[in-house]
Amino acid sequence: MSGYVEEIIEREEAIERVSGRLGFPWTLRARTKSLDEAAGCRLADDHVAGEQYPSFSRSLRDGYALRAGDVRGASGQSPVFLTLAGESPMGAIPKTALSSGEAVSIFTGGAIPEGANAVVMQEHSSMAGGLVEIRKSVQKGENVMLAGEEIETGNLVAAKGERIDFRSAGVLATMGITRMSVMAPRIGVFSTGDEIVPSTTIDVPPGKIRDVNSHTVRALLKESGFESVNLGILPDDADMMASSVLDSLEELDVLMITGGSSVSVRDHTSDILSAIGPDGLLVRGINISPGKPTLVGGSRNPGRLVIGLPGHPLSCLIVMVSFVMPLLGKLLSGRQTHFCSTGCMTAARDFFGRSGVEEFIAARFDRDGVYPLWAKSGYVGILGSAECLVRIPRERETFRAGESAEVWLW
Amino acid sequence: MSGYVEEIIEREEAIERVSGRLGFPWTLRARTKSLDEAAGCRLADDHVAGEQYPSFSRSLRDGYALRAGDVRGASGQSPVFLTLAGESPMGAIPKTALSSGEAVSIFTGGAIPEGANAVVMQEHSSMAGGLVEIRKSVQKGENVMLAGEEIETGNLVAAKGERIDFRSAGVLATMGITRMSVMAPRIGVFSTGDEIVPSTTIDVPPGKIRDVNSHTVRALLKESGFESVNLGILPDDADMMASSVLDSLEELDVLMITGGSSVSVRDHTSDILSAIGPDGLLVRGINISPGKPTLVGGSRNPGRLVIGLPGHPLSCLIVMVSFVMPLLGKLLSGRQTHFCSTGCMTAARDFFGRSGVEEFIAARFDRDGVYPLWAKSGYVGILGSAECLVRIPRERETFRAGESAEVWLW
Repeated sequence: MSGYVEEIIEREEAIERVSGRLGFPWTLRARTKSLDEAAGCRLADDHVAGEQYPSFSRSLRDGYALRAGDVRGASGQSPVFLTLAGESPMGAIPKTALSSGEAVSIFTGGAIPEGANAVVMQEHSSMAGGLVEIRKSVQKGENVMLAGEEIETGNLVAAKGERIDFRSAGVLATMGITRMSVMAPRIGVFSTGDEIVPSTTIDVPPGKIRDVNSHTVRALLKESGFESVNLGILPDDADMMASSVLDSLEELDVLMITGGSSVSVRDHTSDILSAIGPDGLLVRGINISPGKPTLVGGSRNPGRLVIGLPGHPLSCLIVMVSFVMPLLGKLLSGRQTHFCSTGCMTAARDFFGRSGVEEFIAARFDRDGVYPLWAKSGYVGILGSAECLVRIPRERETFRAGESAEVWLW
Repeated sequence: MSGYVEEIIEREEAIERVSGRLGFPWTLRARTKSLDEAAGCRLADDHVAGEQYPSFSRSLRDGYALRAGDVRGASGQSPVFLTLAGESPMGAIPKTALSSGEAVSIFTGGAIPEGANAVVMQEHSSMAGGLVEIRKSVQKGENVMLAGEEIETGNLVAAKGERIDFRSAGVLATMGITRMSVMAPRIGVFSTGDEIVPSTTIDVPPGKIRDVNSHTVRALLKESGFESVNLGILPDDADMMASSVLDSLEELDVLMITGGSSVSVRDHTSDILSAIGPDGLLVRGINISPGKPTLVGGSRNPGRLVIGLPGHPLSCLIVMVSFVMPLLGKLLSGRQTHFCSTGCMTAARDFFGRSGVEEFIAARFDRDGVYPLWAKSGYVGILGSAECLVRIPRERETFRAGESAEVWLW
């Protein structure tokens, strides 16, 4: 019944083994998109700055551009008075240089005139009888962003494999990078199991359940920047499974097969994966809980990666987040990329695990810390409420209430 | 210069004021999509369960279905022997009922035969001479998920306004909800300012900068489940701005105008917003930092919401996350929805703020806690590295290292 997990390895070791055997990274299909279209996708290339930013020295405040040396010692008690030498127009470089004893009115983002080296904020100055009264001294460079201070020519602006989100979209727009190649690997998803019927089934026959995993896996891939194809439900029949899988691999780089619960489906998947590449099954089980019965096969040439995922919807998602997404990163860019960020939060309750296995426990959090969801193995309630996963490393058994727990914000 | 912020109100108060004056929620355009297409979008309706889940009582383990009463007191020292009465086939309801003294082989997900009320796990049992040896007692219901235990008919499965992610996609698929109406409000984004040139500009003229905000705002809307239209860059000219804004409102429900830095653009925006609805400007400034110079106008009939956002890219995004997204939730569903989840992490360094204003500080985190990003007002570096925001409430000035800080995981 569990012959396929006869050689269980650690999660990180499994990622490295598959990457090494299959010669990751692979160069796969990419598409060119505009920046707005590309939002949510992953960059197929590194992008370096072709210019410095900012391209001119800019004011960081509304106020007056001046020479710091002219207002040394200025204060409310002993203000310094300067001659107003005009205004720095928005969107243009001031035509005339500023001389000693002069101030130029300036707005946030305005260009610092030649000869000026600092800005005094509006609230520390005022107009008084045609002169500018300055009531605060400033350091050279104060309230000024120097040309090139944020980005120098040649700096890495965005890395291959990075997902374009609202933050990186801003950096790319700043640097004028508005067309880009994004990764478009060909990914397919099969569901398996005689108990699985299409999710569109209205009256589910007794003993059957609707397909869930193809939807969760594909939604997770989509959130992570990847399109995928739903290949349908495979019957529990060795020959039909094998021919469907091999046919589909003609058109795919990566195939996920979400498992049914019956032993025979597991065995068929294991046999098919064994037959795909010269190395046979690359991974026959991972030392994580849940998610142990994960299978990996594939070939280096042509590049094919096939992953057998557990059938339980929560286990399937935990394997996707903890194993498949880092592995896809290795495949596409040579670096593990993560679906979610990880941090730590105070355990608001005890988290109980077992030593000797890396565990992922569905959890929720609030301002008092992070709480385990101890649902009886139902997954619907957990899917509805699990805001994060708590990872208990292999060498630990528990996080006690009050201890700091490692949180994966999936 | 700051006449438009003469009446600054608290963020929550601003959300409530606008919602009340404009009669939120509004019923806006929706589109029907399949579940897979709808992933990432927001539901236009509540969805309730049309059936119970699971539809039949299922095993949560591989093992043997039996009557708990038959194995009372069973242990390794004193096992109980039962008659094997067949196997519960995957994907079907067992045809014959189980009698006292019998056990039926079952797999995870298999249907519990009539007459059985518990499952003993594989590892606490074995086949011995045609009989099933049971070495552990179980409670009635143990390792069984009863029909309807997770979801009862009529339960709320997914709420109007909820974004369909990989978790909710699983719940919807489980219940057979595979076509749905998703919100498709008509949202447009203008940039303003004479210093702004299109982001596609290769050689940026001296004193100008590329448009950033239309890209960040639209990418954030996209991540949050909303499409939007880029309306381009408005010149710093009162009449042209007014006619462009009023024309665009013919086709829009919501308009964002990201601000330029010059006073005149701010004044023009303020004038235009004042003229849109009978109430004039609804919000003339919010007591948050950054983001104070946020403006809101609109009308109840026809429903129009117009928001003037700060021009600084980081301020603009902070207002989007802290104010605009909750307000959009009120508009669309009557409930604030949030772009990101909030929790707490230990401050790894001091966070300094000011009392009397609600502050949002860009931050990053690791396993030791959360760290402020004290960048000089450049935004590129902050956009690149800010994993979250720390909110310092109005009545606080600091979070000291070691204290628990409120984190917005944007």
